Amino acid sequence: LTFEVTILGSSSARFTADRFQTSQILNHNERYFLIDCGEATQIQLSKYRFSFQKIDKIFISHLHGDHYFGLIGLITTMHLLGRTKELSIYGPKGLKEILEIQLNYSETTLNYPLIFSETNPDKAETIYEDDKLSIISFPLKHRIPCTGFRFTENPKVRNIIKENIPFNLPPLQILELKKGNNISWEGETLIADFCTSKPKKSFSYSFCSDTIFDENLIENISSSDWLYHEATFLHNMLERAQKTYHTTALQAAQLAKNADVRGLLIGHYSSRYHHLEDHLAEAKSVFSNTLIATEGLKVDISS
Amino acid sequence: LTFEVTILGSSSARFTADRFQTSQILNHNERYFLIDCGEATQIQLSKYRFSFQKIDKIFISHLHGDHYFGLIGLITTMHLLGRTKELSIYGPKGLKEILEIQLNYSETTLNYPLIFSETNPDKAETIYEDDKLSIISFPLKHRIPCTGFRFTENPKVRNIIKENIPFNLPPLQILELKKGNNISWEGETLIADFCTSKPKKSFSYSFCSDTIFDENLIENISSSDWLYHEATFLHNMLERAQKTYHTTALQAAQLAKNADVRGLLIGHYSSRYHHLEDHLAEAKSVFSNTLIATEGLKVDISS
Repeated sequence: LTFEVTILGSSSARFTADRFQTSQILNHNERYFLIDCGEATQIQLSKYRFSFQKIDKIFISHLHGDHYFGLIGLITTMHLLGRTKELSIYGPKGLKEILEIQLNYSETTLNYPLIFSETNPDKAETIYEDDKLSIISFPLKHRIPCTGFRFTENPKVRNIIKENIPFNLPPLQILELKKGNNISWEGETLIADFCTSKPKKSFSYSFCSDTIFDENLIENISSSDWLYHEATFLHNMLERAQKTYHTTALQAAQLAKNADVRGLLIGHYSSRYHHLEDHLAEAKSVFSNTLIATEGLKVDISS
Repeated sequence: LTFEVTILGSSSARFTADRFQTSQILNHNERYFLIDCGEATQIQLSKYRFSFQKIDKIFISHLHGDHYFGLIGLITTMHLLGRTKELSIYGPKGLKEILEIQLNYSETTLNYPLIFSETNPDKAETIYEDDKLSIISFPLKHRIPCTGFRFTENPKVRNIIKENIPFNLPPLQILELKKGNNISWEGETLIADFCTSKPKKSFSYSFCSDTIFDENLIENISSSDWLYHEATFLHNMLERAQKTYHTTALQAAQLAKNADVRGLLIGHYSSRYHHLEDHLAEAKSVFSNTLIATEGLKVDISS
């Protein structure tokens, strides 16, 4: 089962020679979720060979342009490519209005349904769930309404130990055992713990951009396998970070440690930084399993 | 005096591996005018080393996204770079509303004045003039309201022949002679034709994208030095061109010929074309001084 995030853009508000604005794509078992969509995200998607049409859901954290100016172009391109499959967009109040006014003036009627869901900037909410995965949005503390997102695999079913069950046990009974329930079968009790082995681990990925350092996040990101957290500044610019509602590399690492995550991915670097070794060193001084988000980087959430 | 256009994007609605959406930048004596602004135009401006802050005026032909989705990002970047100098935008009804709603939701108050002028999709109008240049917008025939633009240098003054005028002639009298007026000076009549030589030629550039083939354009583009005209399709797709209100390479050349322009620049190619030799050959069969717009191409309007 694939559970992998690819970085499409690692910069903050301004492009640099090699950094694009925030965007990431999450592949969960060949379902694709796009998280934020800075200008030119469609160029990055093409560069890293992701099919636009495989994207099912798009999540927008907030309405600063470096997180969503590429969305209207992507939506339009999906239309031009003949998409008919529904596309769901989760984002803040105002996003629907911004997209619709542009579609209206261009007299474009999309060939596919665009389903908007407004995120709640005030409290954590489950915005999507199915049998495999649940997705929550949760408040970040930024200059305008902003949310993070957490993608959590549902608990997986237990694995059958073939030699410990009757060869003719029907599927419905097998499913009950996989769920961990003991069952009766031909007058016998079959014990789930004996007939099955422990389920595989479920994994989760949390995304936090943009936000001031905020320990209230911990309840929502706690024990994520991987946490993406913005690290716009180095810690010697703490004052600037606080003033602009951003985080330093050191603070991101502190949060990762306190939230007991397995790995930390930092990004959203200010364009003033020409190299990122200092961000990495600063974060690693507090939390060793840190990676620097760079364009094209893939991180396996499930390993 | 520089009068030069640089192509930033030559594609139509869809990006290709090497083609960006429509945008051009016109340098008139170190004043910079941006014409159309597809997504990622700011990346192209950086690539070809144009200073964002030197751009004084932006002209948007119409509200199909491949002609303006890059504008909100460019405006925002100018703000982040500390611009204080006024920026004028000429474009269709709706553009102001689209930009303002996005600035409002991001709670951005620009550090510089943004001056909107609405273009008239129904008749040609002078939208700007000063002592050097006049700019008109004129209707194109597309699926939604759309205008072209013509940039015309004002008639230049005549050049003084030093040996044919009194050495002590004051500036005001010199100016009259430069304008071609005879003057009286110390009881004598000075004849402009004798005291001055012919002025240098004035040049002009016309921009037409997107439009169906329309001979009514000729009155506005007539005798341009260079004409940019869209050539989305080859002529074997004439039916498709007409249906979508676009032009074929052959038709663009026909129009250039009928409008008696000096040079033709074609662009806005459908993404179905992987090479452009056929566009060039087709246009040249009717109008030999044709160039293919490609990213980074510079054309000297004044030579």
